[in-house]
This record gives sequence, structure tokens and C-alpha cells, in this order.
Amino acid sequence: MNFSSKLLEGAVAEFAKLPGVGQKTALRLVLHLLNQDKDDVERFSTAINKLRNEIQFCSVCHNIADQPVCEICSAPKRDRSLVCVVEDTRDVMAIENTSQYNGLYHVLGALISPMDGVGPADLEVDSLIERLRTDEVKEVIFALSATMEGDTTIFYLHKRLKDFDISISTIARGIAFGGELEYVDEITLGRSITTRVPYESAITR
Amino acid sequence: MNFSSKLLEGAVAEFAKLPGVGQKTALRLVLHLLNQDKDDVERFSTAINKLRNEIQFCSVCHNIADQPVCEICSAPKRDRSLVCVVEDTRDVMAIENTSQYNGLYHVLGALISPMDGVGPADLEVDSLIERLRTDEVKEVIFALSATMEGDTTIFYLHKRLKDFDISISTIARGIAFGGELEYVDEITLGRSITTRVPYESAITR
Repeated sequence: MNFSSKLLEGAVAEFAKLPGVGQKTALRLVLHLLNQDKDDVERFSTAINKLRNEIQFCSVCHNIADQPVCEICSAPKRDRSLVCVVEDTRDVMAIENTSQYNGLYHVLGALISPMDGVGPADLEVDSLIERLRTDEVKEVIFALSATMEGDTTIFYLHKRLKDFDISISTIARGIAFGGELEYVDEITLGRSITTRVPYESAITR
Repeated sequence: MNFSSKLLEGAVAEFAKLPGVGQKTALRLVLHLLNQDKDDVERFSTAINKLRNEIQFCSVCHNIADQPVCEICSAPKRDRSLVCVVEDTRDVMAIENTSQYNGLYHVLGALISPMDGVGPADLEVDSLIERLRTDEVKEVIFALSATMEGDTTIFYLHKRLKDFDISISTIARGIAFGGELEYVDEITLGRSITTRVPYESAITR
């Protein structure tokens, strides 16, 4: 693209580094910011800088937090015998939104992905083991993506955890509620038949 | 969404103000920035602030520029008898990319849109009239979007310009090159029949 200004080109290049944002979208976003008040743009950039510089991670579960121990880990009403292992803060938000879970979390920060150069050492595994040693944890629930990376991570963690006296579970996989059979992919449909559940336990869930 | 951190919530809210960016996309972009080096995030926010605070607009054509008179307006090789009227800097970039135009530009900054509260006073019209009075302009070309707003703006500008001894033209409208007839909308197809051109002039263009 032929930019009429180096400043414009620089700002567009920065925006285009964001995931899923191409040159044209970046230009549209930058021109939008140009039309805003200086104070609004200042507030935008300050919010980003402040987040990056002042963000903290909970020392127990590693979720993003404003204090050393996050609200969930410090809540007295939470069931401290349950730990749900997730990839990142988005998964915590998604599970919290269901209002179906009252235990604690453990945020790994990534999934094992040899293709992307992410190994077990890049995940918050040691602190999870530490929690199992000292805490009153009775069950660990894996709530990881149903992908190759998620399965690899569960396989690895299961090996590390199997000597502890705790039960290990994964969230149920199958046909989504409201999903029509003809649009479901073959692997999900095939697995949902081989891992079928008795009718009585399905309706009481 | 249940954010675990006020800082995170604030940054996501700022991103979600951008056009076409919803809460989920905003969260994805913010988490991406959180994973970057502090220097990279600093560079991102600095580029935006610098653009907003130091940007200049060409005093002749009102395009975004790094100097008081933009590169196009100050280029000696440009045909100063042609002025192409466009909405914003993206249109200048699009026309420059074609390498088919060697005249000057005039950036209106907006199109007349009563629905959005944009009237003629919000457009750079007076300075266009001023250029026609003092400059050596022989032809004004309207290159505005083929929308209600574009047509309204052309109608208004045409009234303001018709007493000047200049020719006024608009860019050609019709079927796009490579376009298949059956997929063209009815208005474009109908207009392209009523405004048909002699075969000889069509192939020499």
C-alpha cells in the first residue's frame, strides 16, 4: 500500500501484527482512531500499557488477577477439593459463565505443542503438583480443548498425577445440546456412540 | 463477561470500541498483547499516540501527510489541471495503486449523510471552491462511492461548481472487469445498459 504518511504507515503496521488483523482492517481501525478525540486515543493506549505493566497472576492458580491471590482462590465459599485444569483465562471465564462449577482452577498458560515449540516446561505443571501435595484436593478435572494439543497435554499430566490419591476426570465430550446429527463431524459422532451413557444417567445430569 | 481483573476488563472495553471488534475479539487481541514483550506493547501504544498527536493534513488537498503540503500536491510531475475529489485517504491510496491517474486530489473527509448528521459544512468544500478560483484546474473528477451518500454529495458539489469554467466528470460505473452477468445486481446491470458506450470507445479505453 502507498501510505501518504510514515506515521500512518507505522500505526497500521503495529495494528497489522495483531492476530486476524490484515493491512486493510488495520488501516480502517487506525483511521477510526484518528477521528476520535485525543483524550480517547490517550485512554486507549494507556489502558493497554497499564495492563501490560501492572498485570498480576494469581500465585495459586496463575489466572490473571489484580491481587497476589485471585478472587476465586481466596473465596471462602468455593469447594477447595476440586481443581479444574484449563489452558487460559478465557476458559475460566467460559466455565464461570455456566454457573455450574464451584471449585478452584489451575491455569496452565499453554498446551503442549511440539509443532510450535511448546513443551511441558512451558506449562504451570510443577505448581499444580505442589498444590496436590499440600492442598486438600480430592479431584482434578481436565477442561482442555478437544484437539491434538489438548489430548497430548492430558496424556502428559495424567502420567504425572497418577501416583497421587486423587480422582482424575475430563469434561464430557459428545454432541452439543441443540446440535443436529447430520451436521456433526464423524469423529465426534463416532466417539459419542462408543462412549454412550445409560439413559437414566443422561437425563439426571 | 466475568473478568478476573479490572485492568483486563478496561483494556478489553477500549478495544471493543473499535469498529467491527466485539467483546470476544477484543479479549483475544488483549491476551495476545499480554503475551508480547513490554517493549512491543510500548511500541504499539506509542505508534497510536504519536499518530494522533503529530498527524498533519495537507493544506491543499487535506490528505493525511507528514508535511504541510503532501507529496502528491508538491510533486512537479503531476498534472495540476486535474483534481480528483474523494472521500478519504483510503480512496487516494486505492487510485494511486492503479497507476492510471497523474493529477491531484481533493479529500472531502466525509460524504453528506443527513441520517448520520453530516451536512455540507462538515466537508472540505470551501477550500475546493478556493482551489478552482486560484488554481489552473481544468477538470474536476468525482470518485465517490456509488451509494446514496456519494450521489447526494455529487449532486450538491455539482450545483456549487457549475458556474466555473471547468469540465466535471465522474468515474465510470458499470460491470466490473471479470464480473459474470448473472451475479451482477439489477440496478448496476440496468444502468450499464442505459449508459452503454460505442464499441470502439470501449475497447480503446
